[in-house]
Amino acid sequence: MAVQTVAANSTTSTGTAGSAPYDLGAAVALSCRECGTRTELGPSFVCLECFGPLEVAYELPSGDPEELRRRIAAGPASMWRYAPLLPVPADVAEKPNLNPGLTQLVKADRLAAELGVTGGLYVKDDSGNPTHSFKDRPVAIALEAARAFGFSTLSCSSTGNLAGAVGAAAARAGLRSCVFIPDGLEQSKVVMAAIYGGELVAIDGTYDDVNRFCSELIGDPLGEGWGFTNVNLRPFYAEGSKSLAYEICEQLGWRLPDQLVIPVASGCQLVKIDKGLRELIRLGLVEDKPYRIYAAQAEGCSPVSRAYKDGTGAVRPVKQPDTIAKSLAIGDPADGPYVVDICTRTGGAADDVNDAEIVESIALLARTEGVFAETAGGVTLGVTRKLIESGAIDPTLTTVVLNTGDGLKTLDAVAATARPTAVIRPNLAAFREAGLA
Amino acid sequence: MAVQTVAANSTTSTGTAGSAPYDLGAAVALSCRECGTRTELGPSFVCLECFGPLEVAYELPSGDPEELRRRIAAGPASMWRYAPLLPVPADVAEKPNLNPGLTQLVKADRLAAELGVTGGLYVKDDSGNPTHSFKDRPVAIALEAARAFGFSTLSCSSTGNLAGAVGAAAARAGLRSCVFIPDGLEQSKVVMAAIYGGELVAIDGTYDDVNRFCSELIGDPLGEGWGFTNVNLRPFYAEGSKSLAYEICEQLGWRLPDQLVIPVASGCQLVKIDKGLRELIRLGLVEDKPYRIYAAQAEGCSPVSRAYKDGTGAVRPVKQPDTIAKSLAIGDPADGPYVVDICTRTGGAADDVNDAEIVESIALLARTEGVFAETAGGVTLGVTRKLIESGAIDPTLTTVVLNTGDGLKTLDAVAATARPTAVIRPNLAAFREAGLA
Repeated sequence: MAVQTVAANSTTSTGTAGSAPYDLGAAVALSCRECGTRTELGPSFVCLECFGPLEVAYELPSGDPEELRRRIAAGPASMWRYAPLLPVPADVAEKPNLNPGLTQLVKADRLAAELGVTGGLYVKDDSGNPTHSFKDRPVAIALEAARAFGFSTLSCSSTGNLAGAVGAAAARAGLRSCVFIPDGLEQSKVVMAAIYGGELVAIDGTYDDVNRFCSELIGDPLGEGWGFTNVNLRPFYAEGSKSLAYEICEQLGWRLPDQLVIPVASGCQLVKIDKGLRELIRLGLVEDKPYRIYAAQAEGCSPVSRAYKDGTGAVRPVKQPDTIAKSLAIGDPADGPYVVDICTRTGGAADDVNDAEIVESIALLARTEGVFAETAGGVTLGVTRKLIESGAIDPTLTTVVLNTGDGLKTLDAVAATARPTAVIRPNLAAFREAGLA
Repeated sequence: MAVQTVAANSTTSTGTAGSAPYDLGAAVALSCRECGTRTELGPSFVCLECFGPLEVAYELPSGDPEELRRRIAAGPASMWRYAPLLPVPADVAEKPNLNPGLTQLVKADRLAAELGVTGGLYVKDDSGNPTHSFKDRPVAIALEAARAFGFSTLSCSSTGNLAGAVGAAAARAGLRSCVFIPDGLEQSKVVMAAIYGGELVAIDGTYDDVNRFCSELIGDPLGEGWGFTNVNLRPFYAEGSKSLAYEICEQLGWRLPDQLVIPVASGCQLVKIDKGLRELIRLGLVEDKPYRIYAAQAEGCSPVSRAYKDGTGAVRPVKQPDTIAKSLAIGDPADGPYVVDICTRTGGAADDVNDAEIVESIALLARTEGVFAETAGGVTLGVTRKLIESGAIDPTLTTVVLNTGDGLKTLDAVAATARPTAVIRPNLAAFREAGLA
């Protein structure tokens, strides 16, 4: 597991962090998700007591929820309106960054009619972010942490959305970036990773080789001063997804949805959305009532869905992911067990769909709501449909489905089916014959 | 000229419109831009007196500007916050539509430093719209007009951005769409035009053939009930670009920029931004002070730039556009003469750049600000740079540059240059040798 192999370096990093008074807003410490041990803020990610993952601990604002709601409403039209609830300095919106978030919560009435949902169906459309995926959110937080810790290079390993988000964020901020990808990726992903002018290093090997290499690099003097969004900045990076929970509730008029369907790659996003919802309840920003969380995976890489469905909760790694939803193709998801716990605790479920269902669902969403989702969005809607049919999702309750990315990045998935309905000569007779008038 | 060949049908349409009390907000009539003759609201687009183009005439809100500013600020986080200044019903935000607009105005400090701009440089980044181009704005207005006039099909001819915008908007609204494209377009454009599930008709011919066919169709009973965004809905459609002017000024704190650089295809966008700025002055929402407008074209299709530079103002059609900026490749721009007038009247200028400069400018914007522009954005930034060097743009003044679309839609333009900086074996020695640490 990547987190553990680089634990040695984490010690060094914590040492480096020393007692520097980092200004990361309401974040006051890092805390182990397993044993609760606290450590000071810094570029650490593994608990030195139990090797559990560290996460950010806060002193959240107390006081009148109505006052906090007003403060948020008066904030910027981006995720920074929730700065008081995130590990970022109060003046984060003044600094050069991509200002992601506050994407549309689409009231999907036409989709609801097709699916038989009567309780209100919404699509949270994160393709509206600056680089057109939800990754801009965690990367924006990682960038603030990198600035606070004095890192000069922002880095990651990626096969897609994260590469573009890191490249763009670093460019805006004037940091160096160095992104590692497996050699031989699709042209569109290479261009998105390279266009922002940072270093783009293709590794002659698989994505696993890339990850192993990054773990080596972070433990080596060569990696000194480097912030890896998904390694030594991970506790901060991960918090970015909380903003999705905040936005959904604010956009619903400070109400919790009854049901949320969330795609699962590492599982981090789902875990943090749950964390964000619980924070809102604790702060009194929303009513304390039950909600259900559903996890969506692709059949060709469904370790979490299988663990949920076989009732054991044991997440067994998938060695050879095989799905068109490449952004979800993490065979050994770090947060997999937490996802199973959350789905179980909240009364939700986990399920998966095959490639054909993914493509059908992309077309369904585009046709009914004018939202062109990437394959991960097709997974989430496909699983939503499946769970409505099975009765696991209650169609009479308010349901929010996440679209985490943009169809323009996964064109190949639909290119064979998204074709002209007719090819005609340029005259009215030909048009009449085609029967389209 | 397309506008005149279909004038006969315009009469029919005006007849059909009758005296129906269309609720299109502050819009009270159509008015000829040439002779000022007024006609009632309806799907008309050509003046029956002089064959000049019709545009929307308003009774704009009067009263305290501060009160209007507050009303706008309290409005939706989309272009509908300016509904009181647009030809749309007051409840437009409640109806199913893509809710475009309120895209980011990026304070481009790093780009400014590279270009030597000291007066403040901003990029208005319209790639943040739902289908990732500014076309969502005019299409959203055209959709409201189509609903008002009882049209059941939303249509257009297009080679790119407009096709996607029309398909998505119609899907969201539950209208039928029928989009006409020349056969043989790039796969990405075909997919974006087809994915929303409307009819997509490829015409065996050139883009000019497609346009001629659409003009025939609108004059034929086959086209009954069809709203063509850029033909019989054009007066409404065109107004969508005013929202860019409103947003830029509001985002600058209700200040006019000193200089704006705007790409020119038909020229409609530039003309409407100028109209929007003048409205804001008239309403007292911004100070009445001079501003300069600059028009940007690609060298391979630069009829407006040439007309400005040769001093005659006579826009001579380009028969064979040849540029990578395909979304600007309109050889005979309907609003070309108006653009030359506005550039001259405001003390701006018009210029053009070649394909290599377009590619360089796309890379410059991505590298400095993390914004990945389509080729049209490269044109606009390239011309900005050129005009700063020539002294036509004053670097000590506040300057706004428009990016009207998304680099993901014109990948081919940069695919040859946006490549990995190194390909290495997955080990530290190889990385050290690559000299990137």
